[in-house]
Amino acid sequence: MNFISDNAVGVAPQIMNALAEANRGPSMPYGADDWTKRVERQMAEIFEREVRVFPVATGTAANALSLATLAPPYGSIYAHEEAHVMVDECGAPELFSGGAKLRPLPGAHGKLTAEILERALTREHSGDVHQAIPAAISLTQATEAGTVYKPAELQAIAEVARRHKVRLHMDGARFANAMAFLGVPARQVTWEAGIDILSFGASKGGCMAAEAVVFFDPALAEHFGHRRMRGGHLVSKMRFLSAQLEAYLADGLWLKLARHANAMAQRLAQGVNASLPRLHGAKLLHPVEANEVFVQLPADTIAGLRQAGFAFYDWPGEGGPAIRLVTAFNTEAAHVELFVKTLGDLAGRAG
Amino acid sequence: MNFISDNAVGVAPQIMNALAEANRGPSMPYGADDWTKRVERQMAEIFEREVRVFPVATGTAANALSLATLAPPYGSIYAHEEAHVMVDECGAPELFSGGAKLRPLPGAHGKLTAEILERALTREHSGDVHQAIPAAISLTQATEAGTVYKPAELQAIAEVARRHKVRLHMDGARFANAMAFLGVPARQVTWEAGIDILSFGASKGGCMAAEAVVFFDPALAEHFGHRRMRGGHLVSKMRFLSAQLEAYLADGLWLKLARHANAMAQRLAQGVNASLPRLHGAKLLHPVEANEVFVQLPADTIAGLRQAGFAFYDWPGEGGPAIRLVTAFNTEAAHVELFVKTLGDLAGRAG
Amino acid sequence: MNFISDNAVGVAPQIMNALAEANRGPSMPYGADDWTKRVERQMAEIFEREVRVFPVATGTAANALSLATLAPPYGSIYAHEEAHVMVDECGAPELFSGGAKLRPLPGAHGKLTAEILERALTREHSGDVHQAIPAAISLTQATEAGTVYKPAELQAIAEVARRHKVRLHMDGARFANAMAFLGVPARQVTWEAGIDILSFGASKGGCMAAEAVVFFDPALAEHFGHRRMRGGHLVSKMRFLSAQLEAYLADGLWLKLARHANAMAQRLAQGVNASLPRLHGAKLLHPVEANEVFVQLPADTIAGLRQAGFAFYDWPGEGGPAIRLVTAFNTEAAHVELFVKTLGDLAGRAG
Amino acid sequence: MNFISDNAVGVAPQIMNALAEANRGPSMPYGADDWTKRVERQMAEIFEREVRVFPVATGTAANALSLATLAPPYGSIYAHEEAHVMVDECGAPELFSGGAKLRPLPGAHGKLTAEILERALTREHSGDVHQAIPAAISLTQATEAGTVYKPAELQAIAEVARRHKVRLHMDGARFANAMAFLGVPARQVTWEAGIDILSFGASKGGCMAAEAVVFFDPALAEHFGHRRMRGGHLVSKMRFLSAQLEAYLADGLWLKLARHANAMAQRLAQGVNASLPRLHGAKLLHPVEANEVFVQLPADTIAGLRQAGFAFYDWPGEGGPAIRLVTAFNTEAAHVELFVKTLGDLAGRAG
Repeated sequence: MNFISDNAVGVAPQIMNALAEANRGPSMPYGADDWTKRVERQMAEIFEREVRVFPVATGTAANALSLATLAPPYGSIYAHEEAHVMVDECGAPELFSGGAKLRPLPGAHGKLTAEILERALTREHSGDVHQAIPAAISLTQATEAGTVYKPAELQAIAEVARRHKVRLHMDGARFANAMAFLGVPARQVTWEAGIDILSFGASKGGCMAAEAVVFFDPALAEHFGHRRMRGGHLVSKMRFLSAQLEAYLADGLWLKLARHANAMAQRLAQGVNASLPRLHGAKLLHPVEANEVFVQLPADTIAGLRQAGFAFYDWPGEGGPAIRLVTAFNTEAAHVELFVKTLGDLAGRAG
Repeated sequence: MNFISDNAVGVAPQIMNALAEANRGPSMPYGADDWTKRVERQMAEIFEREVRVFPVATGTAANALSLATLAPPYGSIYAHEEAHVMVDECGAPELFSGGAKLRPLPGAHGKLTAEILERALTREHSGDVHQAIPAAISLTQATEAGTVYKPAELQAIAEVARRHKVRLHMDGARFANAMAFLGVPARQVTWEAGIDILSFGASKGGCMAAEAVVFFDPALAEHFGHRRMRGGHLVSKMRFLSAQLEAYLADGLWLKLARHANAMAQRLAQGVNASLPRLHGAKLLHPVEANEVFVQLPADTIAGLRQAGFAFYDWPGEGGPAIRLVTAFNTEAAHVELFVKTLGDLAGRAG
Repeated sequence: MNFISDNAVGVAPQIMNALAEANRGPSMPYGADDWTKRVERQMAEIFEREVRVFPVATGTAANALSLATLAPPYGSIYAHEEAHVMVDECGAPELFSGGAKLRPLPGAHGKLTAEILERALTREHSGDVHQAIPAAISLTQATEAGTVYKPAELQAIAEVARRHKVRLHMDGARFANAMAFLGVPARQVTWEAGIDILSFGASKGGCMAAEAVVFFDPALAEHFGHRRMRGGHLVSKMRFLSAQLEAYLADGLWLKLARHANAMAQRLAQGVNASLPRLHGAKLLHPVEANEVFVQLPADTIAGLRQAGFAFYDWPGEGGPAIRLVTAFNTEAAHVELFVKTLGDLAGRAG
Repeated sequence: MNFISDNAVGVAPQIMNALAEANRGPSMPYGADDWTKRVERQMAEIFEREVRVFPVATGTAANALSLATLAPPYGSIYAHEEAHVMVDECGAPELFSGGAKLRPLPGAHGKLTAEILERALTREHSGDVHQAIPAAISLTQATEAGTVYKPAELQAIAEVARRHKVRLHMDGARFANAMAFLGVPARQVTWEAGIDILSFGASKGGCMAAEAVVFFDPALAEHFGHRRMRGGHLVSKMRFLSAQLEAYLADGLWLKLARHANAMAQRLAQGVNASLPRLHGAKLLHPVEANEVFVQLPADTIAGLRQAGFAFYDWPGEGGPAIRLVTAFNTEAAHVELFVKTLGDLAGRAG
């Protein structure tokens, strides 16, 4: 019973079918195929505006190539100190940007705020050549803490960014989960909120290996094809990336899958919550808004859960041992119920 | 009837099946899965020695990451002036190596020779800090001209490399086609011939998007995992890359598919050869040893072939218009016969 | 009356004389000259061991080239969040290292401690390819806050570094001021305390434009000549850099000049201290150990000092307006006395 | 008697005097000083237009920073295969540009021609993401072969560059020697001939360590200050770089010094020429237009010259041993005459 990560699960059957379907006859390589064109049209509909779309195989590629587009080598990039681009990409943004300066910022529950950014950007001696020029902010939606930026929060951040002439990137590895939570039109949390480039995640949502870099300003995309190629991220048989994305976007599948994952996380959170009072020092570390549940637990409770057959990661916390539970498009309700029941039993014994 | 490229065709059915098979239940991400372990064992058998294997999704990633491992930023990398790493990767080796110096060398039929390399390496003022330190040579097997390095040629090159303390990389995007042509044990044209790292191609051979970086010296691989990650080339649901490779390597499928492609190229070459005497200035530009046929033809003959429904690339030549015909694992014999016949008809009309 | 910076002053007369002396007859370029050899010998005496020495023209070059030697592109570099390498070099360490990850750490009075480093390094999931490999720590001696690491502090840090297999760099832009303060043998705060490479500053101490990168482990220096060249930091008429360094090191001139600067800072601190009680919210922000005095003052006091003809920088503080006063090898005692008196007058009026 | 290089000689007395003069009182660091402003005005007069000027300490810095400004990381830079940027900067252009692709081109006597460039640029599949985008051409004036581009040659090249939307950089390490030879207004071989950025050399001409990056299009210079800083090339006590440049430019000193060097080279060439008929296989390898003489000589003649006390470099030639003789601003006529006489004697003995 696996709560390790949404990349430890397999591929949604609709995506597998689409791959088999795409494997008929020849097709021009490198993205000059019909699947790729159709994905761009789908994205244009979802975001209600013209977009440029570039499929790649990994989220790190999507993020690092996007940031390299927004920040010159002598620029700086701001992100939450726990963001994937900051601590989990082994320096990919530094590599692809040619050595831009990554600036970590704190923020509760994995989120940056307009205030935090205003303070950070005001501190810069703008124009002083000793300091990298503030160039980009990367926001993660949903965040690494499983929380979700609301439209108003994004708009406030965008206002700060605009004033300081800084561009906005959104790391949407779990964009679907955020959208499923918010239930607003996609434009409201992207280009209407000042986002310039979105890493639209699909691998975690149910694809095999497919992410889309979405440009809301086509002019920005001018040389992105060259950047992608020189990053080794232009997959030759591109139709097989695009076919995944096409199936993922068709008929709102992406939202349907994300809603299931989110619902499983909500059920987990509820169930966990019920047991917390009986477990010393136990608590949910962050609001549960997407498909991740972070919970501080006694060490022996954690051990008990593992013994019962549940797999998950330990998570570095401040106040004691904690774990991360991630649900996915195909998490079984029965596994969730069993987890809740097992935790209840462990709590009963402890209490 | 498509002779555009071996990446314009689809995926071999055995590979598609393997993907479906791999999609059962959860699995640890990032390569900590059984498929990836099995691929390393298969490669160890093929090369008859311990190897380290890192799957990636593109050949450019495999090449650029390999070269970055072999050459420091202040090093130089030698390759044929028409090699993929030199002219078709938009500077990926420069990016991943942190700006190593790429040194193009000439050579007949896409090949470097021991003599050419000896001359180039002797020219360097070794030790002079004004010049990048010769660090790596990249050989393409089969070459961009569709030719194949023989074991003795590689050994002679390796001897030069060893003497000048330069490492050897092999770009094996079409390694299967070379092996199918040579019919020798794989070790003879790799580690026994001094190759340090091989980009083992599989996408062009019939996979969807899978290449393997093969280290013959495990010590060299020490930090390759970090390099791959920071390049954005660590695919999270790695089992789906490895499952492709596993199926491709199992029961010699890779060689079987390559033998078919090569046979189709041979048949094309034969048929084309028969018509050449009747076409003014027509000739095969390179020996046909793998799955590519380069042929110089009158412009109206080329136009005639296109009109008859054949797709292929024009190819920059010296003596007049030329085309490249690429065969693949699933090229149909009937298409080849029709091409030969159509060319014969056009030649008859011209003659 | 200039307290702007120790790089706003001119060049010590002994250095100017040395330049004129060096300008006799031809000399081999690029460091193959006698001056450069002599500097290496002088450094060997100062540090009481074999060293390799590479002159460069700027401190940023010395630092960034040193860090690039210690950290691979997939490595991380730890430094104080206010360190020059972190915030005042516009990303030079990122450029020269090929995109290593800079990790800012907090610390009172500009200093890192063994505890802070232990915590930071223990946090890393070592071996996880998602995270850059901890590779180097850069310590500034004297610090940006005008404080000085004591031998025991350095040894404690070195012990942490050794345990985590992390290398140590020392940014010694004001190394002379630190040594003048400490009065211990130079080896005690460098290689005996685990320092691998020292940026030995000389420009701020009285030279025109000269710094020396000092390697305590000659093996580490193997390719540094190439790195310096490709950074554009190999000055062709090198003897004129080395002649500055030679004169600076001869007969302890470097310490003599630093002692003067430090003494002027002490006198400033004393004088300032005497006036603080009468100025609301005024205080020294850091212990005065080298040649910098940071003092929080009422805004109108600061304005008054400027009006009286004193030049200095505002300095970002937490508790209110603050200024930085820097003394130099040629700061005139009369200017210091006048400053103290003026501040006393302003305080008297304020009190 | 030194003909090694124009960087093996010392510093012109006018420059030394200017350094001493500049050393009076404090001055704002980092280029916010009066010397730097005056240099910009002098350059504006020399080039008869508004320019932006950035002093740096080395020619490699000037070149690499300029090329990084003109070419994006996914761009390509064309230069003569023997150009300093191509073979003598250890990959500095690759480092500073973030891995742009350097494309070496052949050309007689160290020169590119409009035809050579037209052919190279036409070969590119423009728009194909597999290939770096042609971005910049670097021309060396005077060339590495001691020859000089004439205004008409530059204009023809500029026309090609404009058509292919490629920018022009001039490596003017010996710009003074070229100007002294040409005797035309500086604008005719720079901005009027389409040059965007000039590396204006001064170190080889008689300065200590000073070069100026001259922008003819101020907009291009927007972020150059940041690039220079992050390259470690912002010298803090900048006035001492600018004071060198100011003295060098004042009253046409730069041209006066270059005229002397060129005249010495002409005298050498004449004298050498007279002896050539009597020396088997001897010949001048290139027209002598600036301050370098390349001459193929019998090996024992070369040995004889060395024995007589002359210092110079061997130079890689095609047809046999050859040497390079470089004259400088302070080359003594007596040394030249002695060289000519010695060669004559050796030729007499040989003949």
